[in-house]
Amino acid sequence: MMLPVGAELTSIRSPRVKAARQLAKRALRQRAREFLAEGPQAVGEALAAGGVVTQLFVTAAAQARYASLIGLAAGQGADVHAVSGEVMTELAQTITPQGVLAVCQFIDVRLDQLGAGSAGLALAVILANVRDPGNAGTVLRTADAAGAGGVIFAGSSVDPYNSKCVRASAGSLFHLPVVTGPPVADAVRALRERGLRVLAADGGAGTTLDDLQSAGLLRQPTGWLFGNEAWGLPSDVLDLADDAVAVPIYGRAESLNLAAAAAVCLYASARAQAPPARAGGPVANLTER
Amino acid sequence: MMLPVGAELTSIRSPRVKAARQLAKRALRQRAREFLAEGPQAVGEALAAGGVVTQLFVTAAAQARYASLIGLAAGQGADVHAVSGEVMTELAQTITPQGVLAVCQFIDVRLDQLGAGSAGLALAVILANVRDPGNAGTVLRTADAAGAGGVIFAGSSVDPYNSKCVRASAGSLFHLPVVTGPPVADAVRALRERGLRVLAADGGAGTTLDDLQSAGLLRQPTGWLFGNEAWGLPSDVLDLADDAVAVPIYGRAESLNLAAAAAVCLYASARAQAPPARAGGPVANLTER
Repeated sequence: MMLPVGAELTSIRSPRVKAARQLAKRALRQRAREFLAEGPQAVGEALAAGGVVTQLFVTAAAQARYASLIGLAAGQGADVHAVSGEVMTELAQTITPQGVLAVCQFIDVRLDQLGAGSAGLALAVILANVRDPGNAGTVLRTADAAGAGGVIFAGSSVDPYNSKCVRASAGSLFHLPVVTGPPVADAVRALRERGLRVLAADGGAGTTLDDLQSAGLLRQPTGWLFGNEAWGLPSDVLDLADDAVAVPIYGRAESLNLAAAAAVCLYASARAQAPPARAGGPVANLTER
Repeated sequence: MMLPVGAELTSIRSPRVKAARQLAKRALRQRAREFLAEGPQAVGEALAAGGVVTQLFVTAAAQARYASLIGLAAGQGADVHAVSGEVMTELAQTITPQGVLAVCQFIDVRLDQLGAGSAGLALAVILANVRDPGNAGTVLRTADAAGAGGVIFAGSSVDPYNSKCVRASAGSLFHLPVVTGPPVADAVRALRERGLRVLAADGGAGTTLDDLQSAGLLRQPTGWLFGNEAWGLPSDVLDLADDAVAVPIYGRAESLNLAAAAAVCLYASARAQAPPARAGGPVANLTER
């Protein structure tokens, strides 16, 4: 099969390579409104989202392996470039690049677009000044897994298009609406206006997640507000929420890390909101030992 | 106050500094049966554990700030050394060292010592070939928060004394019994012999965590088996467990990352095993909106 790939780019000074490489910097991403997705999983998700990929870079060695991604990209009108291993190393943010990398258009939506569809919004996340891209990407992935309808990167939170965040999201960046940049107060207000109860995750809160679960209060539409890894949520931000909720500590740890706390909170909501389990499911095969 | 600190060590070739520095390597840690704990939180937890710290290194600049740690260490018979900033940078594994670092004795216990106390063992974790020290440390911290009675670093799992693992555990390494090195099969057998049902977390399992929760099967003593970040649990390891259980995916993510999946599973167990919530707790103040 003849792949729709142009002549190999072997110079890191090629204009296309230089332009793509600049997307490693936040300010230049924002100017171009484009970012990089690396590796077959992220590129595959970007292509599945459709109309997002503008350019695809593939090493000569990886062309056969990624023939289907190349075909999809070309079919969506993206430019496909073969590159040398040296150029890929220059473009990629990972130590061992996987041979395929896409330039993608920004996909974030405006705050007022969140939950605008007929299905409404039952579960959403606000990241308030979350700075670590790996943490933010992991929470995005967990929010996706829990069925959330959107994630807001609010205040001084990391850029969702940061390469580490894209990588940690494992494709989830392309799965659910993401809003970037609004002040935390605007984000909270927007979710409350859509009928969500905004719960601030705060280790010092008097109410625990168990209390809410036991009282059946997690069934209603909920927005979870998570704070900075190191200093949590300051009191003026806590005041914006409907309630502050602590993940209970059963042992001796002082706290959970952000990604773990978010997983516990989001799954408590997802389970509470899910339709009741059918009787006679696979669990019927399980017995007490 | 006169702090019990010896003359300042300013050379990275000082024998004490060289010996401590070697503890950055796993093989040399295992020979010395000692490891490094960095920063005031880890050092504080090591001192709280008692009888663990053999040497404490403090920069001259940080001596006043860490006077109480210095006093505790000296009181426990540890040697306290003032060091130059250059020596601390050489010893520390972090980019911005916090000025205090301890040499600690290994604290892991044997597999047969786990749950040997009269309280027994209601919740435990087996890490099966988990290689990333940040992930392993985070799961250790989450296991501590969920009230687990032990964590087993089984098979080819990372060394719990790896500096990134110690740091990610945020002190939890000193809070609950840790076992290192047994084959996965031995770890599973040991937990089953103590009456725990061993549940393997596996995204492909037909039974979900919700199924188990709904059936009340998480109340019994449980050992959670978590696999490698990239390849999960191979079938021969899955066969060792009593059941394989999937964290349900409500959205479009393919899977959760290890730390998030472990948080959801461990908290589901902790909540199921906890005594029922009192009536009229803080939740009485919360109302539906």
